[in-house]
Formats: sequence, C-alpha cells, structure tokens
Amino acid sequence: MTDTRLDVLAIGNAIVDVIATANDDFLTREGLPKGSMRLIDADEATRLYDHMGPAREISGGSAANSVAGIAMLGGTAGFVGQVADDQLGAVFAHDIRATGVEFTTPARAQSDVPTARCLILVTPDAQRTMNTFLGAAQYLPPQALDEDQVRSAAILYLEGYLWDPAEPRAAMERAIEISKAAGNRVAFTLSDAFCIERHRDGFNRLIDDGRIDILFANEVEIKSLTQLEDFDAAVAQLAARLPLLVVTRGEHGALAVEGRQRVEVAAEPVDKVVDTTGAGDLFAAGFLAGISRGRPLQESLRMGAIAAAEVISHYGARPEADLKALVAKKLA
Amino acid sequence: MTDTRLDVLAIGNAIVDVIATANDDFLTREGLPKGSMRLIDADEATRLYDHMGPAREISGGSAANSVAGIAMLGGTAGFVGQVADDQLGAVFAHDIRATGVEFTTPARAQSDVPTARCLILVTPDAQRTMNTFLGAAQYLPPQALDEDQVRSAAILYLEGYLWDPAEPRAAMERAIEISKAAGNRVAFTLSDAFCIERHRDGFNRLIDDGRIDILFANEVEIKSLTQLEDFDAAVAQLAARLPLLVVTRGEHGALAVEGRQRVEVAAEPVDKVVDTTGAGDLFAAGFLAGISRGRPLQESLRMGAIAAAEVISHYGARPEADLKALVAKKLA
Repeated sequence: MTDTRLDVLAIGNAIVDVIATANDDFLTREGLPKGSMRLIDADEATRLYDHMGPAREISGGSAANSVAGIAMLGGTAGFVGQVADDQLGAVFAHDIRATGVEFTTPARAQSDVPTARCLILVTPDAQRTMNTFLGAAQYLPPQALDEDQVRSAAILYLEGYLWDPAEPRAAMERAIEISKAAGNRVAFTLSDAFCIERHRDGFNRLIDDGRIDILFANEVEIKSLTQLEDFDAAVAQLAARLPLLVVTRGEHGALAVEGRQRVEVAAEPVDKVVDTTGAGDLFAAGFLAGISRGRPLQESLRMGAIAAAEVISHYGARPEADLKALVAKKLA
Repeated sequence: MTDTRLDVLAIGNAIVDVIATANDDFLTREGLPKGSMRLIDADEATRLYDHMGPAREISGGSAANSVAGIAMLGGTAGFVGQVADDQLGAVFAHDIRATGVEFTTPARAQSDVPTARCLILVTPDAQRTMNTFLGAAQYLPPQALDEDQVRSAAILYLEGYLWDPAEPRAAMERAIEISKAAGNRVAFTLSDAFCIERHRDGFNRLIDDGRIDILFANEVEIKSLTQLEDFDAAVAQLAARLPLLVVTRGEHGALAVEGRQRVEVAAEPVDKVVDTTGAGDLFAAGFLAGISRGRPLQESLRMGAIAAAEVISHYGARPEADLKALVAKKLA
C-alpha cells in the first residue's frame, strides 16, 4: 500500500432523494413492491412525481451517503459521481462538499439529461420504496477518474447500483485496476436483491477474480448472490471466497467474517424508526471509518450499527446528528 | 359576498427553503441577527450557500405555507406566486399542488432569474435566521392574476414580505380592489419587523384606508407598526382601526380582537421544538381555516395554535402530520 491521503474514495450514483410519505394503498395502486429499488425513465419519473405527495429534497446516493458518514466520523473521504449542470446538481455538490468530502467530478454540461433523482416513498412502517431516475449519473465516463486520487485512497468503495449503466461500470473496473496496482483495498456493496438479479454473474466473477477485498451485503442479498436458501450456508460459501465479508441483518444486527475470525454485533436500539433509507449506507460508513483507521472488527461493526441507528431515526439518508460525538459517547 | 369557491386565496413569495443547522458562532461570523429575515442578491446567496452546512430543500414561502396548511385542514385554497421554469420551480409547484392547493400562475420563462430560495440557518435553540434571494418571485406581475379566481375566494390573504418588490405589490393592490368589489374579506400578515421598518407608512395606510379586514402580527410587529412600546396599548390602538386583529405571542399563545370581543388561547404544548420556521404561517393557516368556515374565534385560534405546534416540532415550514386528524383529536 502506497502512502494514502484518503481513507476511502467512493464511486457511486450522484443522486438527490425526493422523499414523500405514502400509504400501502398507494404502493399497491402503483404496483410497487415495498422495500425495492427500481430504475425508471424520465417519463415515469414525471408521472410518478405528479402522483406523489409533497416531498423534501435531501442529497442521497448509496455510496455518497456512506462517504458523507465517513467524513462526519472524522475520516478523510472522496466521492466520484456524475451530476448535470443544473440546480439539483448544485444541491448534490454543495451537500457532499459541505460534509467535508472531496468531490471534483465536473458537472456534465449537456442540458438534455438532468441530475439523477430517487423518488422515495416512505410508508408508515418506515420502509422505503425507491424509484431511481439515473439521469446524468449513468454517464460517468472512465475519463472522469482522477487516477492520482484513486491511488491515494486506502480503500476504494464501489456501489453495485452503478453496475447497471455501461460507462460507470467501465469507470469502476478501471478504478479497481488502479487501486489494486497501488496495493490498496477494494470494497463493494451489492446494493439490493434486484440489482443482483441483473448482475449475478458479473458480481460473482468480480469476487472470484480476487478483485474485491471487502464485500457488504444484507441477508437477502447474500442468499440471492449465492442462490442458497440457508443463511449460514450462504455466509460460509461467500466468506470462503473473500478476504472480508460484512453482512447486515436489520434489527438482528450484523456480522463480519475475516479468515477464521467471525464477529457479531447487535443492532443499536432506536426510539422510533422513521425512515430506513440509508441504513445499509451508514452501516458501511461506520464500519469503513473504523477499519480504515485500523480499529478491530468488533469496534468497526459497532460504529456501523451506531451510524445506521442514527440515520433511520429521521427522514433522509444523510446523518443529522454529530456522528463523531455520538460514536465517542456510545463506545465510551 | 358572492358565491365563493375557495375559502382562501393567497398571494405570496414562491420560495423553496434550503435548511441547514448552524451554531451561534456561524451567525456571529456572518453578521446575521438571529431570528431575522433579510433579502440577499444572487452573489450573496452563492457566497452564503458555499459556507453553509449540508441542507435539505423543502418548499416554503410564508403565505404558501399557510395555504398548504389550510388545504391539509380540509379547506379549499389557492396560491398565486411566481416561480421560474427550473428545477426548484418544479419542486415548488409539485409540493403546493400535491397538498391540494390550486396553483396556476405560469412559470417565468426567462432563464436568467431562477426560482426564489430562502437560506435558513436553524440554531440549536430552534430559532431560524432567514436569507431570502427573491429571484423570480419579485417579478409577479398584476397580469398574472386570474380575476375570476380572486373573486372566487372568501378571503384574500396577502404576505407583507411581498410588499418589497414593485410588481407583486401592484398585483396585490389590484387583488385587493377585486376582492373588495366582490364583497370578500382581505387578510394581511405583517411578516416581520424588518419588513415593517421598510414599509411602515404603506402598511398603516392600507389599514386606515379600510383595505384590510383581518391583520396577522406578532408582538414585535405590532409594537413596530404602531411605534408603541406597551403591548396592550399597541393592541388597543390597532384593534380600533381594524375589523379583526390576530396577534401571536409565541410560547405565550395568541389573541384575537373583533369589535368588543377579545379572545385569548394558550400555546399548544410541544415535546421538543426543533425549528420555529413557519410557526406564524401555520398559526394563520389554522385560524383562517376556522373562520372561513364560520367557526368561532376561540376555536379558530385553537386551530391556529395546534397547527403551529405541529410545524415547529420538525424541520421545514410545511406540516408533516395529518393536520386534519390532529385538530379533530385535540378539539374533541
């Protein structure tokens, strides 16, 4: 590993979340499976937005949420993602920079494709159903990478969602090469089960080619990826193929397997769960903030659980509380 | 009064709020008097935004917040205000229509002036300090009025803030004429003390010309308007010049004076005050929703207090809870 300036550099969708509450009937009427993420085109984005209730806009994007969390925890982080030269693009850039994340990807000038947005419907049970219009985010080209920046990150963190469009996939594959050549670690999140349905072979190949050092997944995702019904069997099969596997289990906590070491933590208690958007992203943030600074697995998992608990206690997938102070207090 | 289709039609600034937390040191460094609203230009908006923390965008605008509240309380309401043909303009239009408010003012096509935004800094004591870039909102022309729509509203509700720019002021003066000629009532909010400093003579003239039937103000504002130090003296002086005066007193509740009748209510208790933005706007919403449907003063004031309590319990100046159910429960 060369001298590293950044703890984590993430590549992901640069998205502004548009968050509205909705009841179960609305999801049924719109034919939306609760808890899922689907990709939508511009027409569907307009149609659904017209039907949705009043919303709030808060910057999002899975890996972007994670690096925002890392910066709030005192880590050094960068983000690579494509916005358009429009108002939502300016909102995204402001918010991520204002958390202390290095973000230098130039906005895409063509005015025909706007900045990505994710229409998020939060039901009274706090679950989120996501409808993503990728817009400019799907045009992140490999040339947008700053190779020195990639080399400067101890951990490169990649978002499975961004595997859908061809250009960003090529950018991520190039970033993996650079990172590996520099002796740094590559982390990857499987993002969601529908995403795995679309890319199971590709994701399995990344793992078996040794291009992933740290894999983040939840229960449903590891079952889907391995096509094994039994959770423990899926964990065992995947862990044997990876240096480090991290699995989140919602209210049942999380576990990490690194070689022969297997560590579990309970979920952090939450007074009232308002919106589960960002739970996995902030878990990854806490965990990466820990291990990138050499903290033990147990402590890193706890940091993930604390950050996840904060983000599900309010609307939006970016932390509102002083995460660093919160973690210091909870770990004391 | 002719047959009325709308309970309330409001004319006000069409604004998207950009809400960030800040500490007192930040306000001091930026030279911002806590709790104030100031108008800023495009350059200052860019400069301050660059300094602010990560934000959330939620539709705002004082009178727009009020009609959103009225619609959520089951009233029929319309809004007139100027947005630009841009992403924040689309956000504003979506949000107000999604609450059930009639909003038909065409977006302004010229691309050089964007939709208005209000940079709001919320300090840990829940006070808000507002920095408004008026953008397109200041160009609302009298021709944008739909005269039939104005005639169709039992109450025309006007925002003092919009008295600053010349075109909207002319639009509001024209709307008063139409409303008065139709035998409807005109309500007006003084907005804030700095606004009164700029327009004291104009506001006093509106009152003494008999063009205002219902005036909304807080303690500081009635003292500023009357230039009387003593609260009771200010109330007495103003009440004598108006058919109906409504004064909000923050945690000390509110009062209404109509002829010889004077009614007071206590503030509604709130578990935790998070952000006082919109307290006055939602008080006006509850009160107008009541009196426009013939409810007694006492009950209308209570509706105002309940709506205000809801909006200060979270970030943003638009209600999040089911206001109608909340009022039904609290008044039961």
